[in-house]
Parts: sequence; structure tokens; C-alpha cells
Amino acid sequence: MSIIIRNGTVVNADQTFSADIYCEEGKIVAIGTDLDVPADAETIDATGQYIMPGGIDPHTHMQLPFMGTVASDDFYTGTAAGLAGGNTTIIDFVIPAPQESLLDAYKKWREWAEKSASDYSFHVAITWWDDSVAADMETLVKEYGVNSFKHFMAYKNAIMANDETLVKSFRRCMELGAIPTVHAENGELVFQLQQELLNKGITGPEAHPLSRPPVVEGEAANRAIQIAQVMDVPIYIVHVSCKESLEAITRARSEGQRVYGECLAGHLAIDDSVYRNESFEFAAAHVMSPPFRSTEHQNALWKGLQGGNLHTTATDHCSFCAGQKAAGKDDFTKIPNGTAGVEDRMAVLWHEGVNSGKLTMNEFVAVTSTNAAKIFNIYPQKGAIAVGADADIVVWDPAGSRTISAKTHHQNVDFNIFEGKTVNGIPTHTISRGKVVWANGQLNVEPGSGRYINRPAFNPVFEALAKQAEHHAPVAVKRK
Amino acid sequence: MSIIIRNGTVVNADQTFSADIYCEEGKIVAIGTDLDVPADAETIDATGQYIMPGGIDPHTHMQLPFMGTVASDDFYTGTAAGLAGGNTTIIDFVIPAPQESLLDAYKKWREWAEKSASDYSFHVAITWWDDSVAADMETLVKEYGVNSFKHFMAYKNAIMANDETLVKSFRRCMELGAIPTVHAENGELVFQLQQELLNKGITGPEAHPLSRPPVVEGEAANRAIQIAQVMDVPIYIVHVSCKESLEAITRARSEGQRVYGECLAGHLAIDDSVYRNESFEFAAAHVMSPPFRSTEHQNALWKGLQGGNLHTTATDHCSFCAGQKAAGKDDFTKIPNGTAGVEDRMAVLWHEGVNSGKLTMNEFVAVTSTNAAKIFNIYPQKGAIAVGADADIVVWDPAGSRTISAKTHHQNVDFNIFEGKTVNGIPTHTISRGKVVWANGQLNVEPGSGRYINRPAFNPVFEALAKQAEHHAPVAVKRK
Amino acid sequence: MSIIIRNGTVVNADQTFSADIYCEEGKIVAIGTDLDVPADAETIDATGQYIMPGGIDPHTHMQLPFMGTVASDDFYTGTAAGLAGGNTTIIDFVIPAPQESLLDAYKKWREWAEKSASDYSFHVAITWWDDSVAADMETLVKEYGVNSFKHFMAYKNAIMANDETLVKSFRRCMELGAIPTVHAENGELVFQLQQELLNKGITGPEAHPLSRPPVVEGEAANRAIQIAQVMDVPIYIVHVSCKESLEAITRARSEGQRVYGECLAGHLAIDDSVYRNESFEFAAAHVMSPPFRSTEHQNALWKGLQGGNLHTTATDHCSFCAGQKAAGKDDFTKIPNGTAGVEDRMAVLWHEGVNSGKLTMNEFVAVTSTNAAKIFNIYPQKGAIAVGADADIVVWDPAGSRTISAKTHHQNVDFNIFEGKTVNGIPTHTISRGKVVWANGQLNVEPGSGRYINRPAFNPVFEALAKQAEHHAPVAVKRK
Amino acid sequence: MSIIIRNGTVVNADQTFSADIYCEEGKIVAIGTDLDVPADAETIDATGQYIMPGGIDPHTHMQLPFMGTVASDDFYTGTAAGLAGGNTTIIDFVIPAPQESLLDAYKKWREWAEKSASDYSFHVAITWWDDSVAADMETLVKEYGVNSFKHFMAYKNAIMANDETLVKSFRRCMELGAIPTVHAENGELVFQLQQELLNKGITGPEAHPLSRPPVVEGEAANRAIQIAQVMDVPIYIVHVSCKESLEAITRARSEGQRVYGECLAGHLAIDDSVYRNESFEFAAAHVMSPPFRSTEHQNALWKGLQGGNLHTTATDHCSFCAGQKAAGKDDFTKIPNGTAGVEDRMAVLWHEGVNSGKLTMNEFVAVTSTNAAKIFNIYPQKGAIAVGADADIVVWDPAGSRTISAKTHHQNVDFNIFEGKTVNGIPTHTISRGKVVWANGQLNVEPGSGRYINRPAFNPVFEALAKQAEHHAPVAVKRK
Repeated sequence: MSIIIRNGTVVNADQTFSADIYCEEGKIVAIGTDLDVPADAETIDATGQYIMPGGIDPHTHMQLPFMGTVASDDFYTGTAAGLAGGNTTIIDFVIPAPQESLLDAYKKWREWAEKSASDYSFHVAITWWDDSVAADMETLVKEYGVNSFKHFMAYKNAIMANDETLVKSFRRCMELGAIPTVHAENGELVFQLQQELLNKGITGPEAHPLSRPPVVEGEAANRAIQIAQVMDVPIYIVHVSCKESLEAITRARSEGQRVYGECLAGHLAIDDSVYRNESFEFAAAHVMSPPFRSTEHQNALWKGLQGGNLHTTATDHCSFCAGQKAAGKDDFTKIPNGTAGVEDRMAVLWHEGVNSGKLTMNEFVAVTSTNAAKIFNIYPQKGAIAVGADADIVVWDPAGSRTISAKTHHQNVDFNIFEGKTVNGIPTHTISRGKVVWANGQLNVEPGSGRYINRPAFNPVFEALAKQAEHHAPVAVKRK
Repeated sequence: MSIIIRNGTVVNADQTFSADIYCEEGKIVAIGTDLDVPADAETIDATGQYIMPGGIDPHTHMQLPFMGTVASDDFYTGTAAGLAGGNTTIIDFVIPAPQESLLDAYKKWREWAEKSASDYSFHVAITWWDDSVAADMETLVKEYGVNSFKHFMAYKNAIMANDETLVKSFRRCMELGAIPTVHAENGELVFQLQQELLNKGITGPEAHPLSRPPVVEGEAANRAIQIAQVMDVPIYIVHVSCKESLEAITRARSEGQRVYGECLAGHLAIDDSVYRNESFEFAAAHVMSPPFRSTEHQNALWKGLQGGNLHTTATDHCSFCAGQKAAGKDDFTKIPNGTAGVEDRMAVLWHEGVNSGKLTMNEFVAVTSTNAAKIFNIYPQKGAIAVGADADIVVWDPAGSRTISAKTHHQNVDFNIFEGKTVNGIPTHTISRGKVVWANGQLNVEPGSGRYINRPAFNPVFEALAKQAEHHAPVAVKRK
Repeated sequence: MSIIIRNGTVVNADQTFSADIYCEEGKIVAIGTDLDVPADAETIDATGQYIMPGGIDPHTHMQLPFMGTVASDDFYTGTAAGLAGGNTTIIDFVIPAPQESLLDAYKKWREWAEKSASDYSFHVAITWWDDSVAADMETLVKEYGVNSFKHFMAYKNAIMANDETLVKSFRRCMELGAIPTVHAENGELVFQLQQELLNKGITGPEAHPLSRPPVVEGEAANRAIQIAQVMDVPIYIVHVSCKESLEAITRARSEGQRVYGECLAGHLAIDDSVYRNESFEFAAAHVMSPPFRSTEHQNALWKGLQGGNLHTTATDHCSFCAGQKAAGKDDFTKIPNGTAGVEDRMAVLWHEGVNSGKLTMNEFVAVTSTNAAKIFNIYPQKGAIAVGADADIVVWDPAGSRTISAKTHHQNVDFNIFEGKTVNGIPTHTISRGKVVWANGQLNVEPGSGRYINRPAFNPVFEALAKQAEHHAPVAVKRK
Repeated sequence: MSIIIRNGTVVNADQTFSADIYCEEGKIVAIGTDLDVPADAETIDATGQYIMPGGIDPHTHMQLPFMGTVASDDFYTGTAAGLAGGNTTIIDFVIPAPQESLLDAYKKWREWAEKSASDYSFHVAITWWDDSVAADMETLVKEYGVNSFKHFMAYKNAIMANDETLVKSFRRCMELGAIPTVHAENGELVFQLQQELLNKGITGPEAHPLSRPPVVEGEAANRAIQIAQVMDVPIYIVHVSCKESLEAITRARSEGQRVYGECLAGHLAIDDSVYRNESFEFAAAHVMSPPFRSTEHQNALWKGLQGGNLHTTATDHCSFCAGQKAAGKDDFTKIPNGTAGVEDRMAVLWHEGVNSGKLTMNEFVAVTSTNAAKIFNIYPQKGAIAVGADADIVVWDPAGSRTISAKTHHQNVDFNIFEGKTVNGIPTHTISRGKVVWANGQLNVEPGSGRYINRPAFNPVFEALAKQAEHHAPVAVKRK
């Protein structure tokens, strides 16, 4: 099956140009102006539209077992919703329970993910440490295409990694050419503040942000970054939500350290007033960690994207319905943490970012797709409109418009944090692996059409870091 | 005439891959593995070598009339030397005298440049202000392919632009879609310090850096950046030499401002001890502005390149021989300011940057070529190994080696600031507009083979800035 | 005449303690618990109250001829109002017109000030430059007790000092042991923005802050600080109103530079929404430069006081009545710049600062009195409750309360920017030079009771800076 | 017994003035010019000399049991040496072993300290956590005059406090009005680096700084500061040795946080080349934590003192002789950590700081005495030449000179890190509690003449912090 997209304007991270795009067998095979294509090729007329690499959401949690329940979007519904929004790849997370074998957990998640409608890959979380963990990390990197490991610095008494684990795992990552990533919140501080708030009788969702103030995130981000610096390894901070952690990244980058930052569509567009809403359902539906922040933090995140100190945008898509959120009715610490968004990320970013002049179109492509592909070393298979790349494409109508609503979205959850927001700029077509799966509002997907993406170790930065470490290798002093 | 480069590894700013490159009629026309090429195509075997976009030196001054003399490299010798070093494009400067018509000056420089061996373009300096200057700026942008204007904040009583000129010219740049660039040194401070040093009897080249300490540069950089912020225009700071100005850039970028920084190969590799050398000739040969700095500043510049706060590397190539430098024998303020380097920039960058792990190969390409092309809006005609791009290519041998010396260089000057430095990593072939002009140590150039490059106005950032300005447009309050 | 203050708690910048205070002949002569005092000494019972050094407002403009009119508070009404608010000293400004002799201007202001009710001193502005200015600076320092010179970086085409003047005057200050102070706003940018706003038809007071955005102030502050650094002189930035200039100060101080910052009660308590008020009279009444800012800037200023990067608080008291402000009815650039506040500063600072825990009581004393006395080298004559100090004392009732209003204030102006604000914490008694001039709401002052305060040159920081400069003195290289 | 010091110049933190000082019964009882004193008062002629508050060294470890040995200076020899150097008070540390009762440890140390020759007080370390620790903290504050608790973030598997302990102890400090202090080094990173270095066969003292790079300190300082911010408590960072931790302090202070920094005379004057000395004895004699740093860090520390981001100077006096240091001959991790200096701190600070113009004399007094007294709430009993203060005085001869040497020092240790340094500026007389204990090179002390200093809780900053916390107290949302 083949597709020809005509009359559009290609927008890549590095340039914009007019060209037609021809795809065959899941790949882009030609880009040009007078392409010679089969007569039966499916034609998409992209007049007045932009042709961009399909989105990569590097942070989702489909059907995650968490806090006593399971996220409502599974790998099929979640990836299908992503495709409706122009997102053609997700990187989800394998999260072993403490003491659980990494390989066992990885295999379990792979099985769950087989029904995915779009391509997918997995970060693997390091939730505990012993020699078998170190060994399994090697196996995952060398045999299973994993090149990133996640560390939760929060969630004390559950999956929190302490400093010893961080230090050892980061060193192991350096050896394996894998990127450590962190959820940066100081779990001890969160725990202490949670207890104090509950003791004061402040038990509703309004306590959630109070138990996780920005400085709690900033501290952890700074700590992880500085441990990475000592361990000679790049580092990727997930869901940067506030000035404090952004500043830690910015400082490190200005010192030349290889640090990458991700932020979420939600943190860019929603503020913390939601937690003080009189409706528990509404407030609880916004409970995620880190929480939404005040507008000064939103402004800072946009500047982080503009200045190149933040690199990717994601959603941390982890959907829970009202019935699930109700578990924390009397105790905010029991509200399952998570919000949806994989379907809405790109439109929200375009609307808030490109339409207002905060981002150029090329930067939009970079932060929704290309940069994630580069950092996680699947570029240019993903992240580019280029000959030889996967035919993961979104055709974008800057004049199109949509009002986001849980009533109309494809995500399997009864709430949408962007409810009522009208976005200007929407996907008219999404092509996944060379197949049109979304066209003018119609979703045409099936379970299992997505494939697992192997991600090779040692992205280019590792070679540079190894040379640097060699240059500074310690030397013994000869003594008499 | 056509060329096929086989068996090499292509290194672009965004990726590295193995492919052959086929060039025809001055353009790259095919990239791939089993290319069908004419039998008579000239073949370059790039086994074990890297194929990279030819260098762009965005800051040179060939045959510049300056301080009572004329720079010794003319447009032919200077560009030829550049080609020997893998540099295929220069952006030089038209510098009208105060009260001189911009157009007249521009035409004069164009004439001088006709003998160039490589491609070239021109920034135009704004050294004075009245309505005719504003009018000529428009003509240059709309009719002559100029998209950048230079402002000297130093050189009081000569070409210094005061704040009024900066403010008005930056505003004009915004209207025209042209990038203002600045030589950032506070000319009043320099002048005062020069007088004081002379009054104290410190008249040798050692006084040169003392009259231009880092803070003098940092102040001016900060001022220019903040004026640009108010005027809603991007800005490019030439030859950033010290922490202070880098920090001004870094601060602004972390606030989302569109600021670009250039640094020189010399500032990355040479320290200020040269000015205290006992030989006047040696010390004077290093006199340029801003001066070389102490190692902490060098280290900072490398970090600036790594962290993305500096974007381009240049040379400020402006060569003067010992006889010319002798004009300042008794008064350091009369030593013609300038050093050579267009031939050595890429090798010095590779040796100091890539070999030590400070930069990846992709970053090397970005800072020697691609970023300059993007900022000055000639990408991907320049700055990329891509189908359709100009066939400006350097074939790089990482195992090759050369000891830099004035005795062997092709620059028309009797001194080399990198004298005696052995660099690992050198160009084996340079292709300019589809012609092999440098091969295994042999230069094969002729005057006039280079062409003038038109640079279109309004790079993508301007559209974003215009949208932002519109968002924040002032509104009158209705009063009763 | 003698006074004994009993049962109070003394609050100095460095400590708090219980003691009685005995004053005689204008001086504090004893501090202790069982003081032996004359039977006829006037007794003040300070039970439950704090005894603090009288306020020093280091920035006022009484009866200033400015923008075609004259400030409505003269030296008598203004200083009397200050005494009602606990302020016992002002430092006002002599502002020569360009080309006017500094000495002539100084003498004129001295004459105007003879009717002052409280003590006073003068900064002298450098509004132009030639050798006579340099000579007069010396005379003023050596014969007239002036140790600070003011530079306006704004007010183009009027009193603006350009960079040449700044450089030369700062150097002169270093030689004389006098502190340069600056009004930091880039006058060229202000002028350009004013013209553009008027051209767009935005002529009301809402244009005032738009013509002077924070970055305009930040740029100038940074420039002045860096010029001072090169010139080896301490520097004092008046009326810091925004993050940008505070950050310039903070950066310089963290590098060890001797920089001092002043902020105004108004900037700490009032935001920029006032300029968008529908009433021209209300909006115009708030026109001063720099303008009031958004709350994020207010918050920053408080942090500057807490962290020791801002040192003094002032008012820039310069009062104009509605009839005077009306001159700019159709052109905001013609509204006389200035607001009142010398009577309210201390109460506003206490209420907003001490009551909320932003400042300790000792810090309150430091920033309302002691620091100004130290920087301008009149400590401990002023700024301390200490034996031998001038008996300039305020007795402060933390339980007292007052609602500020133009109807009840003693300032000679028909508007109060703090109108309607109820402050907790007010002066019950003010003692000036050993005389009770304010007691329980009654003002008992007379013209001419205040005296001129000589301020000696070379505060302790100058000696350190001179040693540092000597350490880094340039040395000529001996050459063959 | 009484003493009159005549003809000297008093230097306090806030001012310099000429006066005679009269002491009686251990107190300063009069300051003035024509003092009426008993005929038999001992007279010190201080012509040409400065009279300053005796030094306070807030960080010493006399006779500390540590790493299998005991520090060689006991409370008598150590305090006696301090007096010889002008230091009249030390604050030492009670360091309970994990699980040891705080009260038991405290009493043990009090007993050891009874032989002190100068006044002394104790910080108490929190090396473990349970309810009894929280209870003992209260007892120590309320009954034993302790107002500061120390936390070691390094020394894993020994006395390291993990984040849980930090969080709980800091909260407890807030409740009790005590200041938490921290030794800031990330113990996990140090441990990992130590193991790696030993594994590489780098076992000598040169490995010591490599196992504790600056970033390891910076991370911990930042973490402690941010935990303190969340816990609403001031914090004091001991022995700040590098830019990274200073920057963490500077950032926090610029945000208004109440953070205090201490640096050591050694870190200000000695660089890390000592660890690469060919002599093991020499190198090992310098092993302390944090280690000495490169000159850029020394420069930064001076700027920290100048800019008010560092507040106190100390020594971390903890002396071990060559025989003790030899325990780590084959394994640098077994070298007892510690160096001496209580005798030399003030002279080194004067010589390096005041003579070069880095500090004014008043700042010298502030950072050697006054600031420690204020922060630890014993001002003005200590830290001031003031009526009512303890007669702890040093008479300082700026023209005097001494060459520091282990051969002549009074410290009970066979090495001096300042060996051979000639300092200009030395104490001619030290008065402790009203007795001349050091005069013109003669020490006249006896064991037990020093007294324990009670330090009251709740210094003034606590009240402000409590008000602030109240202002921001969390509030529950009322829901339907």
C-alpha cells in the first residue's frame, strides 16, 4: 500500500519547505515536487496544511497498575487516542515492584502492549537494587532494545529509589550506554508534608499541591543532575513542572552538562487553582505528580522550551475515572495520581505555543517529536520527514479547530483536563507506519498494528562523555 | 562535472550515517548506497573519513582598510586559505565610514570581493544614523540579499554606534526582518582605560587586554541584548570571548529571548599570557579585540558551545603583518587589531573539541557550519549534506595530522597564532560548488570562482517574534 | 532641655534590649536601667513600645523645579510631614541644569533648605561634564560635606548623563572618596518607546509604564554597576523597582562588588494596575519613574531586602497636585513625575514587612535608618540608639493603628498613593535633635529647626577598594 | 581585677572609633576618652593598635574520638592555642554515636571541656533518629543552653544522617527555635567514589579530593537548604569550601531564605596541590573534609565573604599527628580527617583579607566574631566591644608580623598547614573574661578558666519565620 501527500508544506525540526511525500511499505521513500508514483497510491491533498513527523509521547502509562487500581486506558485505547491526536509513537514504562525481576516485569509489559495501535517502546524503572538488577539492565540493553532507565525519587515506602540506588544505577547506565531518567521529587519531604497536612485535618485534593511544593521538585532535580555529573552520564528529567527544577537544568546545561528536560502539555496550560475547586471530582481528576503549578511556573516552562533548556513534551498519560479517583475521598494521598492527554498534547502545544509566537513551527516539531527521537536514539527512523524514515506522519491544518471534551475524545476516561478549550490547529490525517489511521475525524485503527521499537544504546553523547572521562581519569601519585 | 564520494561516513548536525554522495553542477544530487553515477564522475574514496558540510566562517575581514592600513589577506588569498582548511563560505563585513552611504560602501566591497575563491556574503555595519541609513537598509535587504547588520559598540571616535543608533537600527532591523549583530565592548570604558594606561606609561601590547577587561565586553553584550529584547528583534553577538558576555547571553536565552552567540577559534585555544611575551612582535601579533582571555574564560566558552548558548564559531580573520603591527610600537592603541585563522578554525575546533570529548561530531558540524547557515537563513543551501544543497563539502580524516605554521599556511600573513600546534583531524578534500579545490594538501583554486550568496530576510524566528509582539501590543485605556 | 524615655524596648539594627534612654542637648547621653536624670527632664513612657533610631529617607525632592513646575512640598512642609511619620533626616538632591555651575546650584538648594524642620543633607547630581564639574566635585567633597553624586541615566534631552559622563564622573568619585549613585533607566529606550506610543495614539498614563518596562531599568543598572566595577568605586542604585535591576545588583554582590540598592515604599506596596485606572487623575497621580510594577517585582524587592541585596528604603518624595499633573492630560510624557510618601514610609514598611514576618525588627531599623547612615558615612551620628548619637528617635507603638489618607496627612499634596491603607504599627513620638516634635498625633515643629548634615568622604569601603586596586595595578612588560 | 586599654582604635563590626576600654570583673564596663579608672588597673597601651572583640571559632573538635583515634589537642591545649591567636570562644561539637543518648553524650563532652582555658559552647550532632532523640533535643535546648544541632550528610556507615533524619530533625529545630547546621557532602557519592578509586589502585592522599569533588558538596548544600526552606527553619552550612555550595547559598539568600555560610581559614588560603605532594606525610597532614580546593574556589569564598553570602570563618580545628595520619598509609579512606588552625585563623584572615583590601576591618570583625555571636544568639555578650559585654578582647598590631610554624605554635600537633607563611597583623594582647592571657608573645593561661556559654533559643529570625509560616498556613477547602 502506498500514499502520496500532495501540495503541503513539510515542517521538520530544521527547516520548512514545499514538497510532496510518497510512502510505501511503511516508509517514506520519496520527497520532491514531481514524484512519479503508482496510479493507485492513496492521495492526500494537503493544500494549506503542514506535513510533520508524527508525535512521540515519551511518557505514558497505559493500563498501569498503580495505587490499588489500574489506569483506564489500555495499550489499545491509549495508542488509538494518540493517533487521533497526531501521536504515532509512545514510550511507556515498565515498573517492576521492589524485588521483582526486571526481565519478568519487562516481559509482562511487552505482553500487555501487544494490542497497541501505534508504535511503542519502554523505559524500565529501577525501583530497587542488587546485583541481579545490574545484570538484568545489561540484558535489557543488549537484547531487548532498552536504552533508558527510570528512577522515582518520590513514592516513599513504594517504588522510591534512594541515593544509593541512584548512584549505582547511574554508574551502570554509563557503562551500558543507557540514559537514566528521573521523576524528581524528594520523597521524604512529600511524605512528611502529607502526614502533617493529614494531621491538620486538611485531607482534600487541595492538600495535594501543598504536599509537593516546587522546591521539593527542584531539590530532587538538582540532586539527580549532580549525581549524573559525578557519574559521567547524561540525564533526562521527566515532567519538569516548575521554575526550580528548570533552573537546576539550566544551570547544569550552562556548565556544559548533558541534561535533558521534558515537560507536560498539562503543566504548560493548566494552573493549580484546579485543586481548590469546590467539586471533589473536579479537583481529584487533576491530581497527578508533580501537581499543576501557578502561572509563573507555566511561563517559565515556555521559556525553557524557547531557550533550549527543555527538549521534549509529553503527557504522563495515566488515566483514572471518577470512580477510581474516589478512593481518596477522605484522604488525598489515596487519590490515584494521573491524568490523560495523549490525544490532546499536540493540539494544545500548537495552539498555546505556535499561535502565540512562543515557538516557531520548527520548534514545535522538535519538542513534540524530533528531540525525543534523538535523545532516545531512534532518529531519524522517527522524528523526521525524511527518505528512509518510518511513515509516521501528521498532516496539520492550522485553520482547523476543535473544542476538547471528554464527550468527544477517544481516550477511555470520563474526564479531560483541557475540557472546553478550543484549539486552533488540528490534525486532519495521521499516518502510522504508512497507513492512514486518522482522516478528517475518522479513526481507522485495529489492535496490534503497532510495533515495538528497539532503541540502540550509546547515543552520540556517550562517546563524548567517555572521552571526557578519559581526559580526567584519576592518576596515582608516585611516592618515595 | 560530477563527483562521487564513496565509502565515507556522513556527519550532519542532526545525524551520522554511511552513504555515498553524488554531486553534479555544483549541487548534491544524490545520497545513498548504490548510486548510479556517470562513469566519468570524479571519485573520492572516503574510507575511514567523515563527509561534512563545508565550514562557514561568519566573521571575516578580508582586505579591510582599518587603523591606517589594509588587512593583508585579500578576498582571493583569504578565501583560498579557507578552502585549504575546509571552509567553503565566508560572511565578511561592509563597513561604511561615518557619513558614507551604505549602498556605496556595499558596492565597493562587492567589487573587492569579486576575486573570491569561495562563496561569500556580507553583513553591513551601521556606523552612523540618519534617515538615509534607514532607507539604505531597506534597499540592501530587499534588493541585495543582506539580512544582517553589524554594530560596533567599541572604537570611540571612529565607527562606534551609540545607544541612540542601536535603538533605532534594531527597530529598523525588526521591521526589515534582518538580524542585528554587535561587537560588544563598551567603547567609552575602553577609551578611558587606554588613556589612563598611556598616562601611566604602560604603552606596550600588555596594555591591550588591560584596556579591555572582560566586564567591558559583558556590559556591552548585556546592553545590546536588552535593547534587542525591548525592540522585539533577535540578536547575534559576535566573538564572545569571556564568561561575562556568555552569561548575559545565557541569562537572556533562559528567559526565552532569541539570542545567538559566536565565538572564535582563537578565544577557545589561546590565553592572554601572549600579551606579556617579551617580544613585541609576538605580543603585537596577538592584538585583536576582544583580546585573548585567561583559561577560565576559555573553559566557559566551551561550555557555552556544549550547552547551546553559543552557536557558531568564527575567526574574525583580519590579518596584519609584522610591519603593519609595528605602527603601534610605542602606543598599543595604534597596533592594528586583528589576527588570522580562517584556514585553521575547523582543525583547531576538531582537535580541541571533538578529540577531547567536549563536542560530538554532530555538534562540531553544527557550530562550524549548520548553525551559521540557519541563523543567517541560507540553510539548507549551505550547512547540510543534503540533496539539493550546494556541493560545499569537506572530507575529514580523523587520523590525519598537521602542525600549524606560518611557514606552511596559505594565509597571506607572516604569523600564525596557532604556530606549532599539532592538530589531529584534518581535511583531505574540500569541494566548493561541486569542484574539488583542495585534495591531499594541494590547493586548486582560481580567483573569482566564488559567488555572492543572497540571504533572504525574515528567518523563522521573526514570525514568532511578530506574533508575540502582537500578543503584547499596548492598548489605550478608555477614560471618561 | 532633656528627655528621658522609660520602660521601652530599644531596637537597633544589631540587637534588641530593654533600657531607658536619656537625651540632653540634642544628643543621647545615657542608656541604661536606673539612670540618674534631672527631675525636670521630659518623660516619655514607652511601655509596650519600641525605641528606634529616627528614619533616614535618603531620597527626597522637596520643592524641586521639574518638568515646568515645582514640587508642592517645600523643605518645611516635607520635613515636617517626615517627622510626623518618624523620619528625622532626609537626603535631598541638588540638580544643576546642564551647564549650570555645581557650586551655584548647591548654594541655591542650601538656601531653599534653610527652613527645614528636620536634619537634611544633599546628594549632588552630575548632569553634564567638563573640567569645572570635576573641580566643583572636589570643592563640594572637601568643603561642603558632600560624599555622593547622582547620575540620571534617563531623561534624554534634559539631565541625562551619557556613558562618557558616567565613566569620568565615577572615576572622579573614586579619587574623591564619594559614592556615585544612579537613577537607572536607559534614556534612549524610554525616549524611543515614548515616541512610538504617542505615534500609536496611546497618550494616557497607561503608556507611562509601557514606555519604561523593567528591562529598561535592568539594563541601566547593570551598565552602571559594571562601569563602577571597572572604575574601582562603590555604587548605589536608587529606587530599584524590579527583578531585572535587583538581579544585576545581586550578581555583582555575589562577585564581591561593593554595590548598594535602595527601594521605595511605593514600589514595595503598590502595583502597576493603578495606571490603567479609568480616572486620569488617579492614574496620573501615580506617575513616577521608574513606575510601579507587577506583584512579581514587589515580591522580588522584599526578597532583596531579606537577602541583603537591597539596603535602604526611601520614597523619592516629590509631590505634585492634581492641577500640576494635569499638564500631561493629553500627553503622558508631560505629566510631572513624582509621588509623595516621606510621612508614610516607616509605617508602610513596618506593616507590610515586620507584621508579615518578611523582616525582623532589627532589619526594619537597618533598612529604614542604619544602612543609609553607614553607606553615606554619618553613622553612628545617625542610625543608632547609642550614647553620643544625635537624639533622633522614634517611639513606635506596634499596637497603634492609622488609616492613611490625604485628608489627614501632613504632606502638602492632595493625593496619597497609600490612601485607605490601614497600617498597624505607628510612631507615638518623634524626637529630632533632642526635641519632641511629634507626640500622640500632635506635630510641634518650626521652620529652620533642622540642620545641614556634613557627610565625610571615604567611607570604610574606599580604603579596601584602594588596596585592591593597588594589588591589581597594571605593570609594564620590559622588552628587549 | 581591672584593665584599662588606652590609646587604641576600637574596631567593631559596625564602626571604628578611638576610645579607651575599661574592664572589670570580666566585663567591659566603660568605653570613652577620659575614663576615671582605679589607680591599680592594669594598663595596656594600644597606641597604633586595634581593639577588637575576641575571635569566636564556631567550629572546633577538641579531643574528638574519630576514625579510631582521638584528636591531639584537648580542650585545654586547643583553647590555650586559640587564646594565643586572639580567639576567646570556641563552639565545639557533641557527637553521639548512633543509638547513643544525646544527653549522655552531651554530659560526657561537658566533662571533657571543663579544663578549657577559654569560653566554649557546644553544637550537638544528630546522628540517628527516634522519639528519644526528639525528646533529648528539647531538653538540651530548654535546660542546657544548646541552640544548634549538627547534621553530617557524609560519613556513610558511621554518623551520616539520611534525608528522613534531616527532614524530621529540621522540623524539630523549627519547633525548638534551634538552628540546624550541616556538613554538606553527599555521603553516597563519596562512598562510591572511594570504592572506585581504591579499586583502581589509587590509594594515596591524592585520592582524597578526587573522592569528594566540589559538586558532591554543592549537591548536599543545596539539598539541606531546600529541606530547610520547606521546614521553615534557618540553616547554617559549615565549612563551605567551593563555588558550588556557595552558589546554593547565594541562590537561596537572593530568594530571601535565611541561610548562613561558614568558611574555613584553610579553605581561603590553601589549594589542593598539597594532596599531590610527593611526601605522604605532607599530603596526609592536609586530609580533611571537605578537602582543599583549587584557587578558583578560594577566590569564590572571598567573594562570598565580601558579598555577605558567607558570614563566619572557622577552622574545623581537629588535629592529628603524623603517627595518627599514618593509619591511612595504604588506604586514604583511613587517614583521620582533620587539620589544626584555631591559633592561626585570625592572623591568616587579617593578612589575606584586610591587607589585600578584600575585607574592611569592620568586616574582619564581623566574620571572625560578631556574626557567629549573632547567629548563635550570644550577641552582644560576645562579638562586640560594648559596655556590658564580656571582656573578651584582642589588641591587634597591624604592623606586627609572625612566621607561622609548627615549631613555635601552641597547638598540640606536629604540623601546621600554614607552615612558613609570614603574616602581617598579629595579636599583642588577648583578654579573656577580663584577664590578660596573652601579652607580647607570652601565654598566661590555666586549665578550667574558661566557662560554658549558654546559648538561648529563638534568635530574632525565628519570630519572623513563624509569622511567615502563619501567613502561608494551609487551609482546607470547604466542599459540598
